[in-house]
Amino acid sequence: MILATLREGGPDGTLIVVNRAKTKAVRAEGIAITLQAALDTWGTAEPQLLALAEHLERDDCPDVFALDLSKLAAPLPRGFAFYDAACYPEHISIIRKARGATLPADFLEQPMMYQAVASPILSWCDPIKVADDVGYGVDLEAEIVVITGEVPSGTKANEAAGHIKLLGLLNDVSLRNIVAPELARGFGFLHSKSDKAMGPFVVTPDELGNLWNGSMFTGGRYLIGIRGDRLGELDPGKDVVFNYCDLIQHAAKTRILVPGTMIGAGTLANKDGKTGSGCIAEQRAREQLTRGEMCTGYLRYGDELYLEMFDLEGRSIFGPIRQKLAPLDKA
Amino acid sequence: MILATLREGGPDGTLIVVNRAKTKAVRAEGIAITLQAALDTWGTAEPQLLALAEHLERDDCPDVFALDLSKLAAPLPRGFAFYDAACYPEHISIIRKARGATLPADFLEQPMMYQAVASPILSWCDPIKVADDVGYGVDLEAEIVVITGEVPSGTKANEAAGHIKLLGLLNDVSLRNIVAPELARGFGFLHSKSDKAMGPFVVTPDELGNLWNGSMFTGGRYLIGIRGDRLGELDPGKDVVFNYCDLIQHAAKTRILVPGTMIGAGTLANKDGKTGSGCIAEQRAREQLTRGEMCTGYLRYGDELYLEMFDLEGRSIFGPIRQKLAPLDKA
Repeated sequence: MILATLREGGPDGTLIVVNRAKTKAVRAEGIAITLQAALDTWGTAEPQLLALAEHLERDDCPDVFALDLSKLAAPLPRGFAFYDAACYPEHISIIRKARGATLPADFLEQPMMYQAVASPILSWCDPIKVADDVGYGVDLEAEIVVITGEVPSGTKANEAAGHIKLLGLLNDVSLRNIVAPELARGFGFLHSKSDKAMGPFVVTPDELGNLWNGSMFTGGRYLIGIRGDRLGELDPGKDVVFNYCDLIQHAAKTRILVPGTMIGAGTLANKDGKTGSGCIAEQRAREQLTRGEMCTGYLRYGDELYLEMFDLEGRSIFGPIRQKLAPLDKA
Repeated sequence: MILATLREGGPDGTLIVVNRAKTKAVRAEGIAITLQAALDTWGTAEPQLLALAEHLERDDCPDVFALDLSKLAAPLPRGFAFYDAACYPEHISIIRKARGATLPADFLEQPMMYQAVASPILSWCDPIKVADDVGYGVDLEAEIVVITGEVPSGTKANEAAGHIKLLGLLNDVSLRNIVAPELARGFGFLHSKSDKAMGPFVVTPDELGNLWNGSMFTGGRYLIGIRGDRLGELDPGKDVVFNYCDLIQHAAKTRILVPGTMIGAGTLANKDGKTGSGCIAEQRAREQLTRGEMCTGYLRYGDELYLEMFDLEGRSIFGPIRQKLAPLDKA
């Protein structure tokens, strides 16, 4: 099942069910007004949404309409929780290596994870507005998140798979030049993790077929681009040291996760440097280590970024993220 | 105006308006179902809620009911965002001094602030459930938060006062024994900041009268207790180095704050050690520094904590927080 959110109604938009070809859709009214409302009542909402999706696929829905991507908000325009980890060691190790920093000794024993505010979440095509493009060093981060139902405190990884209700594409915008001084203050990321954006569609795990083993991807082709050039073409099933069930266990160690909690595995990175990078910082670190200088620049006002993941048949799973960097609106 | 949330309806409860004597209330139906919905439409909701509050005070509301504190949830049972700072230097400096650690060099120049997940928020009397009372070192933190409307990215402190819509009492539960190892990993608090709870009432700034200068308290009497004993009696207007407008500027430096964002000034602490502490960790640090050993124990299963703030006439502003520590429910 494929779900999305129209920019209409309240600040959390209006939930729609989308067909497999991603050409048409139907509002989920009568089942749940918003994706959060659906997640809050997933036990009853899911079968009704599935039935609606089947009607839509069979073309016997009265209120069907042609899908217009430009009218979509983020699937979850305001999330209650985002826990993001660093599960692809190449991403963090190569960046730290290039600046002479090290990883925590227990990096492979328990996930590096931080708690983050998940509101607002930009749509796939919303501009990223920052006050200072040059000073901040604006970067994208190619991620995939799972969205959970309610998860009890103390849930273990082997109990976690059933809590994964949906998956989605995420761009975790990072202001690179202020990461290191911020982390040095000891309280984690704040200013340096500014905006987040999601791909237009979230999908139930069954939509992924063989690409999903219940806790992690087994393959897939994740494309990353900046300024019209390819930055990376990565496999989310490779070179990853924790799966999403491990991450749910870690996030829920001392707390309940509310329905709609998003859990990220961090920026994709593969060991084979030839397939490129999931963010500019890693690309720059590779350049520093191989050529002695960083060539690829961070995003400047007007630059576009691109993220999209494809299955083995070349179909886009979550739709694209295409965002431009823009100055802040004048007050 | 005094607002609260009944445990009825959906997971975000039902908004009610409460009279000044805190003896009776009326549902805000027809204006806003939940506090979040009121904050999302504050420009139109606030005058209607104020009018309803006046009717309630004059006793000409048809659907008035007697207030039963036990039926109240947290005012905002699920918040989109919580940014918490450390504005009372005595809290953090004495704790670090006792363990031989230092403060960041720029501690007084810009707030120490972290972003946190604000869902769920426990009610004033919900038990705090943890898997391991002895191992975690469970502590309370006596805080006051402001709740904002939508705040544009880049808002300055001198533009921030109007964004403060409500104030509330907050207990930021902290698992002390896992704070230091967690911060040492570099990504900030996760497991160590487990639960949050709010006092039953949130109030508009005008309710505070002379106790509020638009950006900070000018006085007040904040009582903190554990196991039936007084732990502290603190003045939130004293010994504080940033105000809530400074904190809004800091939180909004690179991002929009959505309506309902909570901003905390951190654990209250006064320099005069005779008035006690706003958390157990500080009390223990004082004991270590003065007597050479830590005597006051962290919370154990069954122990109760108490927080409440009073105005100069001895009236409770936000109602009490009274919570007991309990083991996790068995699955």
